[in-house]
Amino acid sequence: MEEYQGKATMEKITSLAKRRGFVFQSSEIYGGQSGAWDYGPLGVELKNRIASLWWKEMTRLQDDIVGLDSSILMHPRVWEASGHVENFTDPLIDCKKCKSRFREDMINDDNLTAKKCPDCGGELTDSRKFNLMFKTNIGAVEDSSNIIYLRPETAQGIYLNYKNVIQSSRLKIPFGIAQIGKAFRNEIVTKNFIFRTCEFEQMEMQFFVKPGTDEHWFDEWRKRRWAYYERLGIRQERLRWHEHGPGEIAHYAKAAYDIEYHFPMGWRELEGVHNRTDYDLARHTQFSGKDMQYIDQDSNERYIPYIVETSGGLTRSLLMILCDAYDEEEVEGEVRTVMRFHPEIAPITVAVLPLMKKDGLAELSLDIQNELKEDFATDYDQGGAIGRRYRRQDEAGTPFCITIDYETKENNTVTLRFRDSMEQVRIHRAEIAERLRKEIKGVK
Amino acid sequence: MEEYQGKATMEKITSLAKRRGFVFQSSEIYGGQSGAWDYGPLGVELKNRIASLWWKEMTRLQDDIVGLDSSILMHPRVWEASGHVENFTDPLIDCKKCKSRFREDMINDDNLTAKKCPDCGGELTDSRKFNLMFKTNIGAVEDSSNIIYLRPETAQGIYLNYKNVIQSSRLKIPFGIAQIGKAFRNEIVTKNFIFRTCEFEQMEMQFFVKPGTDEHWFDEWRKRRWAYYERLGIRQERLRWHEHGPGEIAHYAKAAYDIEYHFPMGWRELEGVHNRTDYDLARHTQFSGKDMQYIDQDSNERYIPYIVETSGGLTRSLLMILCDAYDEEEVEGEVRTVMRFHPEIAPITVAVLPLMKKDGLAELSLDIQNELKEDFATDYDQGGAIGRRYRRQDEAGTPFCITIDYETKENNTVTLRFRDSMEQVRIHRAEIAERLRKEIKGVK
Repeated sequence: MEEYQGKATMEKITSLAKRRGFVFQSSEIYGGQSGAWDYGPLGVELKNRIASLWWKEMTRLQDDIVGLDSSILMHPRVWEASGHVENFTDPLIDCKKCKSRFREDMINDDNLTAKKCPDCGGELTDSRKFNLMFKTNIGAVEDSSNIIYLRPETAQGIYLNYKNVIQSSRLKIPFGIAQIGKAFRNEIVTKNFIFRTCEFEQMEMQFFVKPGTDEHWFDEWRKRRWAYYERLGIRQERLRWHEHGPGEIAHYAKAAYDIEYHFPMGWRELEGVHNRTDYDLARHTQFSGKDMQYIDQDSNERYIPYIVETSGGLTRSLLMILCDAYDEEEVEGEVRTVMRFHPEIAPITVAVLPLMKKDGLAELSLDIQNELKEDFATDYDQGGAIGRRYRRQDEAGTPFCITIDYETKENNTVTLRFRDSMEQVRIHRAEIAERLRKEIKGVK
Repeated sequence: MEEYQGKATMEKITSLAKRRGFVFQSSEIYGGQSGAWDYGPLGVELKNRIASLWWKEMTRLQDDIVGLDSSILMHPRVWEASGHVENFTDPLIDCKKCKSRFREDMINDDNLTAKKCPDCGGELTDSRKFNLMFKTNIGAVEDSSNIIYLRPETAQGIYLNYKNVIQSSRLKIPFGIAQIGKAFRNEIVTKNFIFRTCEFEQMEMQFFVKPGTDEHWFDEWRKRRWAYYERLGIRQERLRWHEHGPGEIAHYAKAAYDIEYHFPMGWRELEGVHNRTDYDLARHTQFSGKDMQYIDQDSNERYIPYIVETSGGLTRSLLMILCDAYDEEEVEGEVRTVMRFHPEIAPITVAVLPLMKKDGLAELSLDIQNELKEDFATDYDQGGAIGRRYRRQDEAGTPFCITIDYETKENNTVTLRFRDSMEQVRIHRAEIAERLRKEIKGVK
């Protein structure tokens, strides 16, 4: 604990993220837009790779799961059916004197009972429900007839399309639909960098099962999602399960577990696995008047499927990956900062570095980079001492560096340097691509 | 022309898109949400691959371009600086009698002069400006102090970050920043399927150059973007350049050319290449008070860079790809519908089909599919006659089918069938992956 906190503080992560181009404040030149963040050159590559890996694991490698990308703007009745219009609220309290606004759970019990403002001592209003959905108007008239919401979660787009998916893909239950996409919540309190924001990305998979088999699939998906983080190399001592207790579980859920990660600010939810029962499809049947029953072609049974969901945050995952990868160690009397990303998600896979710019080494390096570009995310850096360039790549989390020197000109060999161990081996130029592929897959 | 229209009508494309799971109407069970569409299992794969290919061509294979992913919600001053608050409007006219609403350019001149409603003959109001940006409120109070817009274009997020990118990546001018992301426009008239929608995705690259070199780079990027569509195999006779004339060119642009594609509904813009001069960065300097000048480290010159932009639509590209790939031909007295996607963007790369389900052929096929899954997007289909299954894959645009039969059990050979020529060759099981890789890259 002590050691962890000392290494990866939120301040260090935020500072490195900005300095190296992982995450920038949105609209910074205008003083910033709270609740929104921009992903810089390294950040967007990291985010894309986390998304691609999840997508591959959850769709391509699964026989019974397909992908979907539904729209952010949906028919407003969707959010009545889902319960969001009624229930997706935070309790807010105003101070009548200083006009400060608080979420009820942020005011301590004494002040709450006394209706006393924690800031100025003024009188507080009663608590009122504040809906977290952003709303806007579609069409040319601004009135209640054309209110539309920015989706606060991606899941509903999957439920709406479950029959379209069956009809177009001939899938049979049990099957899943996976989706990655943006969602928006008008959070009054955004904090902890990109952990809680108004605009964020979710990676959700909804698995449709026969009632009665839901508990089996719930256990199965808990196992699979835990294994996913193991495979990504996340430090196991920073992961734990949290079961939703009676006061915590959503009204639609039969069982709910979160995978929590130990962030610098404490244990926080990373991904939820939920048994949502037939709640969602039953509600959409009721609100749309459409029959959402599944017809089993073999047995002729009809039923509303149960849904087991795995719901994680992509942008939150990125923060977790930054925290988990962050490391400092003393090397030759200096602190080396190194981002120990799994090679499959590192923004740059291999950097090509000429020992010197002169004597044709730069041109030779660019040649080699060009050979690797088609298959790997490469970088080229010729500026400054080689030790300093290694440190820059360490901080960017680049797992492999190829260094070109005078020997390369003589015998076509290069130095392959490993980020984590800092070991160096000499290999032939023709072997680079194959060796990198093996190293990425973990085959020595 | 005649022939083209007969084959790929918008009706056929829309119908195939729904039937095969490329594109569904958003919120269909609630009667649909106009201006928004959902991408089904095949559609999301096609969209992801179009995006990946663009991203690879525009970032990984370019030494001087990096990626970015900026937020949809930005500081409202951004849209004052960009001119959108003032100018991003459509002229709208109401009928006082029947309350119909029209975009001014949709009413013919006679009715316009007479102020006569084309629907009921009632009196029309004067034309008024209607801003196309969606607006919402952020924070707990709904008043003008916290209005925020959904971005109507992705470009501004790049301009805001151009100094952050330079500082974190050590790029020097000329360099580019590429971005793929959603944008929103409150279009009163959405039409032509996914061509004009309220929610869509853009693929934009902003190239920052020294003033005086902008015309060179403008020509260069026109060439490169045209070559991109050639490389994708788009029918050249359906592509043309359109130069923006004096009445058409945006106020900020020095020159503007569109690449137009011949859609079933006619020639329409696919991508724009624009010389935006220093308009954007000069406006942000003015509105933010921040110095947006670039400092040339070598010459010590300071200047506001000119920007050459390539701006295409991802969702619009997908429609173009659907139209361009669509083909019908008579085969043995029946019409074969085939989507001739480039193998690099086809949603399914290879389908594995057992000739029969029995005698272990299904198991053997699944084994082979499993070997291919890690590297290729695969499908498995055991239902119905083999000819019918080929047709299904043709309609999904799958370039390669592997058929497993009794001979496979004897000598480990399979049939490789090509979508376009319908030719079949017998190859060894161990050769499949390598052969597919070569075929995808076009090496025979």
